[in-house]
Formats: sequence, C-alpha cells, structure tokens
Amino acid sequence: MDFTKKVFREVGADAMLTESEDLRFYLTGYPSTFGFVYTDAQESILFTDPRYAESAKAAMKGQYIGVEIARSADAVLDYIKSKKIRKLAVPFARTTLPQMAQLKKRGFKAVDSMPAFTAAMERKTDAELALIARACTIAEEAYIRLLGQLKEGMTEQDTAALLEYEMRRCGAEDRSFETIAAFGANSSVPHHRPDHTALRKGMPVLLDFGCKAGGYCSDITRTFLFGKNGDGTFAEAYAAVLGAHSAALDGVRAGMSGAEADGIARSFLRARGLDKFFTHSLGHGIGVNIHESPTLGPSGKGALQEGMVFSIEPGVYFEGRFGIRIEDTVHLTAGGAVSFMKTDKKLTVL
Amino acid sequence: MDFTKKVFREVGADAMLTESEDLRFYLTGYPSTFGFVYTDAQESILFTDPRYAESAKAAMKGQYIGVEIARSADAVLDYIKSKKIRKLAVPFARTTLPQMAQLKKRGFKAVDSMPAFTAAMERKTDAELALIARACTIAEEAYIRLLGQLKEGMTEQDTAALLEYEMRRCGAEDRSFETIAAFGANSSVPHHRPDHTALRKGMPVLLDFGCKAGGYCSDITRTFLFGKNGDGTFAEAYAAVLGAHSAALDGVRAGMSGAEADGIARSFLRARGLDKFFTHSLGHGIGVNIHESPTLGPSGKGALQEGMVFSIEPGVYFEGRFGIRIEDTVHLTAGGAVSFMKTDKKLTVL
Repeated sequence: MDFTKKVFREVGADAMLTESEDLRFYLTGYPSTFGFVYTDAQESILFTDPRYAESAKAAMKGQYIGVEIARSADAVLDYIKSKKIRKLAVPFARTTLPQMAQLKKRGFKAVDSMPAFTAAMERKTDAELALIARACTIAEEAYIRLLGQLKEGMTEQDTAALLEYEMRRCGAEDRSFETIAAFGANSSVPHHRPDHTALRKGMPVLLDFGCKAGGYCSDITRTFLFGKNGDGTFAEAYAAVLGAHSAALDGVRAGMSGAEADGIARSFLRARGLDKFFTHSLGHGIGVNIHESPTLGPSGKGALQEGMVFSIEPGVYFEGRFGIRIEDTVHLTAGGAVSFMKTDKKLTVL
Repeated sequence: MDFTKKVFREVGADAMLTESEDLRFYLTGYPSTFGFVYTDAQESILFTDPRYAESAKAAMKGQYIGVEIARSADAVLDYIKSKKIRKLAVPFARTTLPQMAQLKKRGFKAVDSMPAFTAAMERKTDAELALIARACTIAEEAYIRLLGQLKEGMTEQDTAALLEYEMRRCGAEDRSFETIAAFGANSSVPHHRPDHTALRKGMPVLLDFGCKAGGYCSDITRTFLFGKNGDGTFAEAYAAVLGAHSAALDGVRAGMSGAEADGIARSFLRARGLDKFFTHSLGHGIGVNIHESPTLGPSGKGALQEGMVFSIEPGVYFEGRFGIRIEDTVHLTAGGAVSFMKTDKKLTVL
C-alpha cells in the first residue's frame, strides 16, 4: 500500500524523510530492518542497503516508490541536500536526539510528520482491514487447533509454543507480541510469562495471543476452564467480564472518546462491585503496531472514528486465585463496532 | 543481573532515568513493554504499571531494585522532582524529541547515559555469557532436530515455522529476529523472506536464525545442499566462504578495530576474486539486542575488546543462482575468538 502521497500532503514541508521501521513499513509495505523513505512532491524513494536491494526492487515493482542503495543516513542526507530541500518533515516521536542533531548539523529545518502519520494510520483502508481480518482468522484457526491438542500435564510454555507454531503454520509471519498462556492462579497476573506450570483438571486457562499477517497484527484473549471447576465464583466473574465486553462492543460509537468507551465496561463492572479488579484499560489501537492510537482507557481523550481498529479487552484479576480477560479485535464502522473474531465467548469448559 | 550501579557510576549525573525497553531489561533482567528505571546514589526503582506489578515484585525480590507503580512518565517525573534532582541522565540515542521536551518542561538538565550503557553492554559478564551460550545451544539443537525432519516438497515457510517451533520447544522465549529460510536461487538474497518455494533435491539451503533465552540472543547461519548438486561452483564458493569465516575466527584479536577484523575475511575473498560478492559486513555485536555494538565492518572504528560477543558471518551472493553465508556467534577472549557453536561447518550434503 502506497501511503506516501497521503501522508506527504498533510505534513506541510518541502520533503519528508522516514526512517523508523514501523512507519517505513506503513509507507512501503516492505519489511526491512534498515532503510529510509524519502518523499517530495515529485518522487518517493526507498533507500536501503545492499542486503535488501534485490528484494526491495522486486517488491516495489510497479509501485510509485523507487529503490536506491544507501549505507548510512549521511548518504541519504547528501541526496536530499542535492535537491535543495530545507524544510524536512520527520516523525518527532520516532526521532532521537542524535538523529535530530545530524539534521541540524546538515542545515535542515525539521518539522513534525508524526501527527500526519497517526491520523493516516488510525483509519484503516479496506486493504489494511483485509490484512487485519486475515491475522485475526489465523489466530482463531490456530486457537481451535490448539484446543484439540491441549492435554493434562502440558506446561504453559508448551502451550504458548504450540499456539505460536499453529499460527505460523496457518500463514502468520510472526506472533504480534509475547504470547501469554496462564494456568490456574497465574491467570491473575495480567501479563504473566509462560512458565513450567502444568495443566491440571479444573484449572482456568487464559490465553492472550495474536499474529502478524502481511505486516498487520491481531490480538485476542480467551479464558476457559480445563474441565469442571467446583468454584462458582469463576463462572460468576466470567459472566460479569463477558457482560462488560459485550456492553462495550455493543455500545461503542464513532464520536465517543476513548475514555467514554472504557467507561461502558468499567461501569458495568462497577455495578457488580468488580471495577477495582479491572486494573488496565479497555483497549488499544491495532495495525502495523500491536499498540497504537487510539487509547480506550480513562486517559483516552481523542474521539473514536470510523475505520479505526482496536481491542476490547476488559478483565478482572484476583491475586493468587484467578484472572479472566475476554478480548476481540474490532473494527469501528458507521453502525458501531464489528468484531473480527468468530470463536464463541460463552464460558467454555473443555 | 543488576547493572544499575555499574552504569550509574559512569554517567556523572545526580540521577539516571531509563525508559527504553532494551536498556530497561538490561538493568533489571525483567521483561516488560512499559516501565522506567530510576537510579540515584541511594536507590534504584522500577516503575511499572499495574499489569506488571505482581510479577515485577516477584522478579525483583532480593534484588537491589525496588518496584513502584506509575501509569505515566509524568508520575515518574513527579517522584524525581520530589527528590530535588536537577541533572538527569537519559540515553540520548533512545530518547525522542517529545520525551526530551517533557524533561526540559519539567526543568531537568539532561545528560547522556548512552555511552555508559554501550560500554557496559559491550563487555559481557559471565552470567550474560551463560545466557548467550544457552541461546546458541538451543538454536543448534533446534537446527539438528530440523535437519532430521526436512523433506522434499516442504516450503521455506514450513521450514522457518518448524525451526522456530523447535527453538521454542528447546526452551527459547522467542526467535531473536525474522528467520531466513532460502532455497535454491532465493539464497542469493541476503535477507530473503521465506515464501512458498518448495524444497527439491540438489538445492542449496541457507538458514539464518537465532533465539532468545533469558532475554539474550543467538545468531547462526548454515548453508548446505539438500542432496547432491552437479554444479562444482557451489562447492568452490563454499570452500572460499568457509576459509574466510575460519580466517576471521582464527585471526580476530582484542585491540583490533572492527574494520581490521572485517578486512581479514574480505582479503581472503579478494584473493579468490570473490570480495565483490561479499555485500555486507563481517559481523555485529550480540546481546540483549540482536544488533548492537561493536560493528565488524569497513566502518568499524572502535577497538574490539575481551568480553565482547559478536557474529562472524562472511557470505557471497550470486544473483539468480545461489548465496552462501556461514555464521557463528563468538566470544572474544584474551586468546582470541571462541565460538559458541558446535555444529559442523564442513560442506554438508543432506
């Protein structure tokens, strides 16, 4: 997807230079660990090093963006200097102090391209939505395959490794973040790292995972019971979290602030005396990055807009006992939120 | 590993604040996507959000570093203000313009902690070497398991997914970078992305992979033939790359510059008319990050030192035909480089 023109139109500078990996990928759709995208009113060039030259040229074939070789920022700045550019847009929130010092030393006046990137990246195009949908489908397909293979005695690490492998086998390039597999009391740690805890009958299981497909992320959490559990408080808490999740999914609208959306789930839990166990935000934007704008949480001031993609993930955590989180990746449309997920969210007892 | 005191001693400031994920992990050994490490002459505190609070407290138990909850940089800066700190060290190369603006607005005088981090991180402690050794052992064990499962018709994507799964099963937390699996002519693209190319008899296979164990990385490349190949040029080029690899491994010494080390392999290939096909650097430092200081390449000015860990990875690439790269992760000692790798580097025909 060629977003260079779209972003460049908004920046108000003579030219735009983009180095950071996520923004560079957003502009070009070409993944690489080194490179720069230069854009002015006439042209757009992906500068990369010889390791990537052959594949970058193949990937950019027929696109608006050309490919040139450069081994350093200085070589790229030489090129920009040769074009008599003075006012150069760079993403301030991705620009470090030494990078800015280099621009100043070379006589450029830097202006911020980050607001233009954020605005463009928040509202997904159909092509981006299709990639996110694919990443969601892969994650759910892998989840279903995993459920068929879960056995007593498997560790959290075994489970996370198998889930990631199934995502890869279903076509993912990578996990989109560190997979969380938490059994029993470990589920009360919202960001538990999989360890050697073994699966036993009656344990709650919390899986928070996602993958990348075509460079775009998915994010999903499911909590279920591995066999019956006599403790009625789990089922009660599960119903409350699912209620909060559904209320937010049904109630979120374009125009609402991220804080208002978060408030839907939080008040639902408050009415049941559980809001103090909901220790994180309702959700976050998802795209090229697993965490991006908007923020759906008490601090989320910006208005939610059509075309945004974000997570809806309320949870409650009872230290030393269990935790429950239910999360979908959703797409905000004119009619409200539409989930990308298809797996059942009713309390599952495996 | 608690490196806070070690780094703080070098920075020459009243206090030190570290936000970036890699440096924060380096200081604490605790992985998280959000947090700040504050250090002054009296104390060191890991500020993190409630999602991590429970597990961070468990991880920091008995360590020098305390744990406190903060939901934003502002909350952390409030704390630092309350301690009357003025001169605050932050890593400039990891500090963005908005972060610096916030420090200035709050009246701090920022000094650079990055040189102290780089110097500390370049020279590995025994505990760090043990983690890297483990990451290398896991990668090689997974490679051996993979070789036993390679079959005609498997795609590059199948191969990369299986290799990553075997690394996870052997105890890795993650791959340390995007696995490269390249068959046949695809091996001539140094950073080829695994695609649907299927494995056929006689094909060269290039695998460049690594994993993370305890937060530290490994990096290894092996190139072999999947069944006999009548083309004698492959064997000839392989011998040249292995010669360059061995010459660099045997010849590198503490006190040499990164450019001199690179020159050993480059001259070896030059003598055989192959240096123009060696289109990248000889190697890079490896630690918490898969690419860190030092640089072993034509631009590597710094002197290599005992305790450094880096890759030695010469390669030659013949566009549209094949590529060969042979890479070990090595540790520089008083007596020269010692490889962490144990798998055979002689030309393998599977």
